[in-house]
Amino acid sequence: MPTTMTILTEADLRQCVPLDLTAVDVVADGFKALAGEGVQMPPILSMAIPQNNGEVDVKTAYVPGFDAFAMKVSPGFFDNPKIGLPSLNGLMVLLSARTGLVEALMLDNGYLTAVRTAAAGAVAARTLARKGPLKAGVLGAGEQARLQIEALALVRDLAEVSVWARDTAKAEAYAEEMSGKLGVRFRTAATPEHVVRDSDVVVTTTPSREPLIRAEWLHPGLHITAMGSDASEKNELEPAVLTRADLFVTDRTAQCALLGELHHAISAGLDVPAVELGVLVREEGEARPSEEAVTVCDLTGTGVQDTVIANHAYAAAKKAGLGREFHA
Amino acid sequence: MPTTMTILTEADLRQCVPLDLTAVDVVADGFKALAGEGVQMPPILSMAIPQNNGEVDVKTAYVPGFDAFAMKVSPGFFDNPKIGLPSLNGLMVLLSARTGLVEALMLDNGYLTAVRTAAAGAVAARTLARKGPLKAGVLGAGEQARLQIEALALVRDLAEVSVWARDTAKAEAYAEEMSGKLGVRFRTAATPEHVVRDSDVVVTTTPSREPLIRAEWLHPGLHITAMGSDASEKNELEPAVLTRADLFVTDRTAQCALLGELHHAISAGLDVPAVELGVLVREEGEARPSEEAVTVCDLTGTGVQDTVIANHAYAAAKKAGLGREFHA
Repeated sequence: MPTTMTILTEADLRQCVPLDLTAVDVVADGFKALAGEGVQMPPILSMAIPQNNGEVDVKTAYVPGFDAFAMKVSPGFFDNPKIGLPSLNGLMVLLSARTGLVEALMLDNGYLTAVRTAAAGAVAARTLARKGPLKAGVLGAGEQARLQIEALALVRDLAEVSVWARDTAKAEAYAEEMSGKLGVRFRTAATPEHVVRDSDVVVTTTPSREPLIRAEWLHPGLHITAMGSDASEKNELEPAVLTRADLFVTDRTAQCALLGELHHAISAGLDVPAVELGVLVREEGEARPSEEAVTVCDLTGTGVQDTVIANHAYAAAKKAGLGREFHA
Repeated sequence: MPTTMTILTEADLRQCVPLDLTAVDVVADGFKALAGEGVQMPPILSMAIPQNNGEVDVKTAYVPGFDAFAMKVSPGFFDNPKIGLPSLNGLMVLLSARTGLVEALMLDNGYLTAVRTAAAGAVAARTLARKGPLKAGVLGAGEQARLQIEALALVRDLAEVSVWARDTAKAEAYAEEMSGKLGVRFRTAATPEHVVRDSDVVVTTTPSREPLIRAEWLHPGLHITAMGSDASEKNELEPAVLTRADLFVTDRTAQCALLGELHHAISAGLDVPAVELGVLVREEGEARPSEEAVTVCDLTGTGVQDTVIANHAYAAAKKAGLGREFHA
């Protein structure tokens, strides 16, 4: 039976899905739904191809109230840069939640993931960080270090931003580029400790396998969003950071217990009470226990975010007249 | 970065990937690889959408020696026939096993799954059934009942075929159609018992949730391939069939223990020794313990089959000049 689907390229999607407050609100709605009834979100399918230093993950979720669900295929092949290709690629397949028919193929090479991940950081900051103007800090100087701070700037006034990265030259390039982009003062910091001690809000964006942030550096009023860890071996926060925090929040507790900072705290034998971000977003009140409280949010990335951003992208592309119809 | 991929439609794939001995050999090679070193095959991702009487499964596998791997998305929405749509749809994404880049989108609506599933039945029969001419039997009268017997006819001479289905009219239509197609006598049977008692080789293709075949009907020389069960609630063979068999074979034992006939035997407290089909294919010798032995093969469908059929389809399409190039 002939069917029609829309094919959207990365260029189409970059044009119609900017990282803006609309994207942040879309992802916030996703977290709300995740805290409600009827969401279906199976464990991530993950396959390593150690022979080629590669891996592929598949995430999905059905979210009530959304017409379609995304099936996101995310390959990471870490020898690609040696041959001039990016490590991360992939696509989303958007399927009708009513019939299972393919509605759109989004050949985004990971762009929508980058947007929805940064948007989740903004949701966490909007829900948990003190009101601004704030001093912000970031660990890492890659794509998410850029997008997380851009997203943060959508929800909080930033007084200044300090950045630390293992590669000092990258941190300097980051500071110069971002300062020009956001019109905010960026400066490099010598150590993660300097970043944490000097910031009101810190975002960690590295693939570190050893903790970068120590519990003794926490100070009143600090909020940390840790979004680097999305695999069991990754770890940015010393486990005691989670127990010393006054409020520890996850995107999905069961998933963070396998892939996030929570995983390492559990392995260290700690008992960490966790609240899911969507529960706080739903409550709509003040989520911070107090001005002086320390809050920590562990983001591993959920299929719900993929489904809501893909629905948003499909609507935005239709509205903009983007994409090619394909008759299969 | 612009990339190029090939888009293949169901019509393209039907044209270049017939159910023939080549397809059977391709799938046999897949099973061989599965029994060897280096295959990566994660558990199936499975999501139910009970709100819409739907489900979606994702299967994949990396198979050493194959340039690419398939990520297969299989939705099943069982209210679709009410609105004139097929229940089963889906596509395969073929990704480079070296870089993770998408090489092809195969919009097959489940066609390649149908072929590789039938081919697996032929591999099982070629490995386990007595040499022909054989009397064959089939339970069910749907698409796989057709394809399984077509595939069986590729590897064994069939003297006649008996068919039973819950819907007698469907069984009659099946017998008439298939008789014309294969030039073999087909007849309908009043019960599953008649089919089993009167056949040398039986293929079960139903979505039954209650056993259709009883152990007391087994007779010397019988081979049964049970391919209907691919979910934990499905069940075609009484558990004692597995223990009464002289040789019980699976496509993947760990998966059959969750989704296949083996699942129900384990639930019934039985201890069932199992050999994987690929091990027998690799050995290349006579797999039947004796002419008089009863053999049973439990097929749940593996990601390896998807990867090998997708590689085969991609090569066949290129050779035939089929497909459209898409620059993303």
